[in-house]
Amino acid sequence: MTPYKRKVNYYETDQMSIVHHSNYIRYFEEARIDFMNQIGCNVMWMERLGLIIPNIDAYAKYLVSLKFDEEFEVKVKAVDFTGVRMKFEYEIYRTSDNILCATGHTSHCFVNTDYKPISIKKSHPEIYTKILDSTKI
Amino acid sequence: MTPYKRKVNYYETDQMSIVHHSNYIRYFEEARIDFMNQIGCNVMWMERLGLIIPNIDAYAKYLVSLKFDEEFEVKVKAVDFTGVRMKFEYEIYRTSDNILCATGHTSHCFVNTDYKPISIKKSHPEIYTKILDSTKI
Amino acid sequence: MTPYKRKVNYYETDQMSIVHHSNYIRYFEEARIDFMNQIGCNVMWMERLGLIIPNIDAYAKYLVSLKFDEEFEVKVKAVDFTGVRMKFEYEIYRTSDNILCATGHTSHCFVNTDYKPISIKKSHPEIYTKILDSTKI
Amino acid sequence: MTPYKRKVNYYETDQMSIVHHSNYIRYFEEARIDFMNQIGCNVMWMERLGLIIPNIDAYAKYLVSLKFDEEFEVKVKAVDFTGVRMKFEYEIYRTSDNILCATGHTSHCFVNTDYKPISIKKSHPEIYTKILDSTKI
Repeated sequence: MTPYKRKVNYYETDQMSIVHHSNYIRYFEEARIDFMNQIGCNVMWMERLGLIIPNIDAYAKYLVSLKFDEEFEVKVKAVDFTGVRMKFEYEIYRTSDNILCATGHTSHCFVNTDYKPISIKKSHPEIYTKILDSTKI
Repeated sequence: MTPYKRKVNYYETDQMSIVHHSNYIRYFEEARIDFMNQIGCNVMWMERLGLIIPNIDAYAKYLVSLKFDEEFEVKVKAVDFTGVRMKFEYEIYRTSDNILCATGHTSHCFVNTDYKPISIKKSHPEIYTKILDSTKI
Repeated sequence: MTPYKRKVNYYETDQMSIVHHSNYIRYFEEARIDFMNQIGCNVMWMERLGLIIPNIDAYAKYLVSLKFDEEFEVKVKAVDFTGVRMKFEYEIYRTSDNILCATGHTSHCFVNTDYKPISIKKSHPEIYTKILDSTKI
Repeated sequence: MTPYKRKVNYYETDQMSIVHHSNYIRYFEEARIDFMNQIGCNVMWMERLGLIIPNIDAYAKYLVSLKFDEEFEVKVKAVDFTGVRMKFEYEIYRTSDNILCATGHTSHCFVNTDYKPISIKKSHPEIYTKILDSTKI
């Protein structure tokens, strides 16, 4: 699995001259979508199939502040997958010195286009297997 | 017409300790939606009717920087309405001293749920009349 | 204490036609800053005094999705204040039917302009007392 | 000059299922900062030197809507550089079919840390030359 990597944008800073804390939740999402893509579960393709994966919760812990123009990478792990729910864990590192800047996790369920929760084990067995395999990496 | 008024949020600042310039485009949108609501054309209600009003362009000119916690108001004027297109002009003032901080304009067309451009004069005569009247205020 | 209240902006929605989950962290911040203002601890004034209150962590749990144009209110409670750290708890309600849409909490420390952690009991006794009193409301 | 390239993030979409129009202003900024970096004028380095380049205005014209997960590239041109002001022109293309999705421009001045406008021809001759050269590419 390739970690997700990019630089901090100017508009992501606030008047403390650090990345505004809400943006780490967005970094988690970027990395999660990249992770899903890498395991063969492109999120746009799944939404076209009628499979949507909303957030149940989100948590971020801030250790060292990222600043404008700094490169960071996000390591993602899929855990606790049941076919009905799944969880991701994240670690964000500053690339220049490999310092851990933030950790966090998000929980998700699977819903259809009517936003009804579904179990994907029967409805989407191929996706189910891909996600299950990804939790063993 | 009541001007749209609120305070600058912390997360809207950047490391220059001023509102990031992209947010003025969002302030224009907030004020435009409030304006449409005041003339009886609630945007959510129109989207439920199948009438969507995307942006064709957007322009902002920055005169004085707004800062965190400052209250501002946005004055909106509807101009150049044809039933096919319309334009809004904006002025943003800092409330404390009534200084003009930014001006701008946005152009819009009307599209249906297939994103096909439409003329609302025949398709939605009631909305057409309300918007036309608003350009005479 | 007056709850913080406003409407969902168009640009806060995503392609699920609901508020993007990262924005709840921003709603928490808006409400927290409003809360601090109500207890006499305006955040801009404190930053000018050299007292900054960064986030240590942030958590949001999503129960019911807010949509564009819906009004919501955020109830804030200050808890676990020690002079070195403090925590806020949040509840977001949709105004129209008083449904609980999200809950969450954030933890914070106090730092000076060099981003060194400080205890405000001795450095800023007046602010210390105001925050302490707010935890008893 | 390498064009700036990346994918649309989920949180950049709105309930029309397209990129919210305000984000193109942010794409322009990302590409402009990348451009400046490529010509040897890293924006963070310049701010540390006390040279800040705020926006005077910003304009975006929307031709074809970008959608979630689509890759786009931004072509940037520096024009009308005087040492006191400069302008950038932008074109955003969808990578998959090279369709032009948006155009725009932004104007900027140079200010010192007191936000006083300066002419960089004398104050920062090396930067002046690099930017001037970039307008001839």
